[in-house]
Amino acid sequence: MENILSFLDVPNTAFILLCTSLVMLMTPGLAFFYGGLVSRKSVITIMSQSFFSMGWVAIIWFAVGYSLSFGPSINGIVGDPFYYAFLNDVAPHTMYTGNNGGLPLLVHFGYQMMFAIITPALITGAFANRVNFPAYLIFLTLWTLFVYCPFVHMVWSPEGILAKWGVVDFAGGIVVHATAGFAAIASAIYVGKRVIRSDGTHNIPFVALGAALLWFGWYGFNAGSELNVNVVTVSAFLTTDIAAAFAGITWFIIEKIHTGKPKLVGFLTGAIAGLATITPASGYVSISSAAIIGIIASIVCYCAVFLVRRHLDDALDVFGVHGVGGITGSILVGIFASTIWNDKGPAGLLEGNAMQVVKQIVAVVFTSVWSFVFTLIILWIINKFTPVKVNQTAVGNNLDIDQFGEDAYTEKAE
Amino acid sequence: MENILSFLDVPNTAFILLCTSLVMLMTPGLAFFYGGLVSRKSVITIMSQSFFSMGWVAIIWFAVGYSLSFGPSINGIVGDPFYYAFLNDVAPHTMYTGNNGGLPLLVHFGYQMMFAIITPALITGAFANRVNFPAYLIFLTLWTLFVYCPFVHMVWSPEGILAKWGVVDFAGGIVVHATAGFAAIASAIYVGKRVIRSDGTHNIPFVALGAALLWFGWYGFNAGSELNVNVVTVSAFLTTDIAAAFAGITWFIIEKIHTGKPKLVGFLTGAIAGLATITPASGYVSISSAAIIGIIASIVCYCAVFLVRRHLDDALDVFGVHGVGGITGSILVGIFASTIWNDKGPAGLLEGNAMQVVKQIVAVVFTSVWSFVFTLIILWIINKFTPVKVNQTAVGNNLDIDQFGEDAYTEKAE
Amino acid sequence: MENILSFLDVPNTAFILLCTSLVMLMTPGLAFFYGGLVSRKSVITIMSQSFFSMGWVAIIWFAVGYSLSFGPSINGIVGDPFYYAFLNDVAPHTMYTGNNGGLPLLVHFGYQMMFAIITPALITGAFANRVNFPAYLIFLTLWTLFVYCPFVHMVWSPEGILAKWGVVDFAGGIVVHATAGFAAIASAIYVGKRVIRSDGTHNIPFVALGAALLWFGWYGFNAGSELNVNVVTVSAFLTTDIAAAFAGITWFIIEKIHTGKPKLVGFLTGAIAGLATITPASGYVSISSAAIIGIIASIVCYCAVFLVRRHLDDALDVFGVHGVGGITGSILVGIFASTIWNDKGPAGLLEGNAMQVVKQIVAVVFTSVWSFVFTLIILWIINKFTPVKVNQTAVGNNLDIDQFGEDAYTEKAE
Repeated sequence: MENILSFLDVPNTAFILLCTSLVMLMTPGLAFFYGGLVSRKSVITIMSQSFFSMGWVAIIWFAVGYSLSFGPSINGIVGDPFYYAFLNDVAPHTMYTGNNGGLPLLVHFGYQMMFAIITPALITGAFANRVNFPAYLIFLTLWTLFVYCPFVHMVWSPEGILAKWGVVDFAGGIVVHATAGFAAIASAIYVGKRVIRSDGTHNIPFVALGAALLWFGWYGFNAGSELNVNVVTVSAFLTTDIAAAFAGITWFIIEKIHTGKPKLVGFLTGAIAGLATITPASGYVSISSAAIIGIIASIVCYCAVFLVRRHLDDALDVFGVHGVGGITGSILVGIFASTIWNDKGPAGLLEGNAMQVVKQIVAVVFTSVWSFVFTLIILWIINKFTPVKVNQTAVGNNLDIDQFGEDAYTEKAE
Repeated sequence: MENILSFLDVPNTAFILLCTSLVMLMTPGLAFFYGGLVSRKSVITIMSQSFFSMGWVAIIWFAVGYSLSFGPSINGIVGDPFYYAFLNDVAPHTMYTGNNGGLPLLVHFGYQMMFAIITPALITGAFANRVNFPAYLIFLTLWTLFVYCPFVHMVWSPEGILAKWGVVDFAGGIVVHATAGFAAIASAIYVGKRVIRSDGTHNIPFVALGAALLWFGWYGFNAGSELNVNVVTVSAFLTTDIAAAFAGITWFIIEKIHTGKPKLVGFLTGAIAGLATITPASGYVSISSAAIIGIIASIVCYCAVFLVRRHLDDALDVFGVHGVGGITGSILVGIFASTIWNDKGPAGLLEGNAMQVVKQIVAVVFTSVWSFVFTLIILWIINKFTPVKVNQTAVGNNLDIDQFGEDAYTEKAE
Repeated sequence: MENILSFLDVPNTAFILLCTSLVMLMTPGLAFFYGGLVSRKSVITIMSQSFFSMGWVAIIWFAVGYSLSFGPSINGIVGDPFYYAFLNDVAPHTMYTGNNGGLPLLVHFGYQMMFAIITPALITGAFANRVNFPAYLIFLTLWTLFVYCPFVHMVWSPEGILAKWGVVDFAGGIVVHATAGFAAIASAIYVGKRVIRSDGTHNIPFVALGAALLWFGWYGFNAGSELNVNVVTVSAFLTTDIAAAFAGITWFIIEKIHTGKPKLVGFLTGAIAGLATITPASGYVSISSAAIIGIIASIVCYCAVFLVRRHLDDALDVFGVHGVGGITGSILVGIFASTIWNDKGPAGLLEGNAMQVVKQIVAVVFTSVWSFVFTLIILWIINKFTPVKVNQTAVGNNLDIDQFGEDAYTEKAE
């Protein structure tokens, strides 16, 4: 094995494996974040949607998803779907060639798998309480294949068209948050408003636990995205935390001014908005820029949440927080990107490269339209086979019983 | 200190320390997994059984356990119990010599300690609500000394008889799950059925939290077991996740076919079954084999749970999930082990070495008989000194009050 | 970037970044530990106090805190507050020069930030239910600037007066626990007793979750404090766990003897006491000494809690557990410090250096007086601007509603 080990960078491999664990833990974190925000009669349904993604999307990724994302390019849009199918031709010592980090391909496969798992789970907050589980499983499949994987390829594969054009997205503002955000809008429109709207936050400590696990895992999400341990990894780690801190406090202040009563849930929502917004920029900007990005994140997302709520029933503000955050960050990276902080990255507007902002905006618009349209088409097709919408009148407040025959908190023996 | 540092492999040491933290977190994870599955009147009792192991077994390990496990061999069955007693003769720069990973002995001591802590805690799900706490503490002691440590020695010490014969167990299918599984059976027989059987799952989000922490920690459990960072570490990490994913989805499908109502708890139980089953095989098989092992895991464990429930009151299905999973995986590694994926490991049946399957089966049978018989003897002896069984009629639904004078959820101030 | 990478130690950087994540997770852990111990009507208030520190103290640290702590020394008492303000002159490749670990300064900045975040959050358990949130935010600011940062500088900056005199504190017994402990005493005196004292532990599983996350993160807290991966890192990791285990079991035994009913919360409190006590000693003592320190920790802290409760309403025993633990450990390191286990550390009393105990005691007394006096002054000043104390008679049992307009567990839709 000696000659193999000469290719494998030991500390980088160790670091990315541990980052993979951290990113994995974000999906249960999301399950608690969303689960706490819904009623105690629908918590199982929304938590299941996240947890099942940990099973089902891993299988899709193994079968075809990684190939679609990182296989040899078909016109820069998508990878050859059979190239890495079931990892058949991948040996333990096959290396990932996308950078010079000395990582086995399997490390890259596993790390990216965790991103594929959490992205569609993000959407579930938008259509909370309104989608049948069989339809959700088909949605998970088709959305991963037709929205998520192509954008991974276009943005993160060296052969992808957006990557080649110079669009940057450090850890997923476009690939993860913009795609999920517009899918949230589309699905909220498709399923319509909740009949019973009053099923609010049933467990704020669960929301806090979820936010804590998301924040914890996000270090792996952003810092790990350098796929290497160097000064960019360090700045990506730190910009992540600083943006979250500034965004949480900013949201708190805005809520205080706006409503008079700042809330823990508001602080946590602001922190998540900051994390989503810094994601595409995390390894390209200075720590000071991250502070500014955090502040902007909460201002923009707070307004977005307020406006969206007037028109749409995006139950847990997926678009307003994750979508708008990801989009805002994807544009801001075009402004704040600094070659001092990442000499492999682009210069941004502040370093005189206005074109980078244009590229970022074009990429965001393109992503938004694609995700919105495909999500609607996917839901429309699924509905031909199995009903997408829950019959809310019949189900009433017993969604978990209807969908799973489970009650989150049973107290039989008393 | 320079000459010391020349012996210590920095990235390997860092990786195994962090894996140790991850494995440590599995025991609280187990406490939540089990705690959520019992009633709100007995959650403290079962959570305490896991948490106390974090204290008590650490002390046993420090006093005598590590010596019994990894001390100089006494006939290949057990280590010299005084060799590392209280780590008296261990210096900071004493190296672990079991592999060439450049690890200080103290790293190996700490990492293995976490395995010793969780293994007896696994058993507690079998005799939930039926064992007095003083008896449990004695059980923890005797079982660790007479069942756990000898099997660590026989399987994982280079001088152990099973290791020398060529039996393999990457991260504990035999040592952890088969021993705990048969102890579960024996103790469920010994304590008899619960008088009050209806004290079901009181908090499914806690079950999900527990499963998430177990899954997260399991990367450290399996990948860390290579005690090194190389291509085997990577494949052990990935087989772990893929097996869990396939097993969770398989269990979900079986439950759908069998009962019509798939459940979140079912998915999580399946994932845990997959994790237990891949454990002995994780660093010896290909990723594709892990997918197959995951599928087999859920089929076998689902049937086992169904059958065991007819005859025994193994309350939280410890035997059916962990025991049968560990046993199944310990045999399957004899079939799927591949020298392509681990050139220090054995060839399995599929590479023409039928003898490996025979060895694995013999080891499993030997382990099962030993654990079953010793567990019964231990319980019988303990009962001479202090009553093992809870007086269920007297205690009724107030187990936590009876055992600890604590109620998990008190709401005095309202 | 090649010439930069030649300065950055890859495995050390990776390790400290991951330790930073672990330490970050301790603050949510604390929120759950404290949150579970209070009533369901005040859980949001106390959890918010921890979570807000993750936002607000990060901003303070970024603006001025790191400079005050590690900037060029002003008379050995405090650092130049503008030196690293907003990290303005810090480049990605600026190195931390406090040791030879090859860490970018930003890694040190981030790691130490997590300590700054959790320290004031520790205090909140003392004045639970009695401090208004606006006053708390000012307290957080002033206490960080006038108590925490100066002690970081005096003890951990190579130019600090206590450091120069030879006082040692491996990971924060003086800097974190003694400062927080005496602030707890001072604030409990200032705010007076709770009118409604019966708002006990509302969720023991949350206490257990919090303790588990604290214990998990504490590996990063102590082992990471070596800022390097070497044999001291390893022993710091292991002494942490061994002390926690011995302390948890010791507390359990004492409570059994004293009250007849040992409790899960007691075991967990003991483990936390052990963790606080080993903190200043973790990288300076042998594993056996850690066991003894763990036993002493629970004996001393149990008595302290018992005595304090007679005189003061330190609601969640912050002084008795964290304060007394930190102080005890800070003195015990003067006794048990061993040059065999850390050749850069001092010899302790047992190696013939009685002076080390004297130095540790002087440092502890100095810290205690400073923290106590400044905390009182700070609270007195704050009260000139905004009322510190909650009007308990008016608020009654509805603290969360009063402070945040939030109820932790709303069940509207039923």
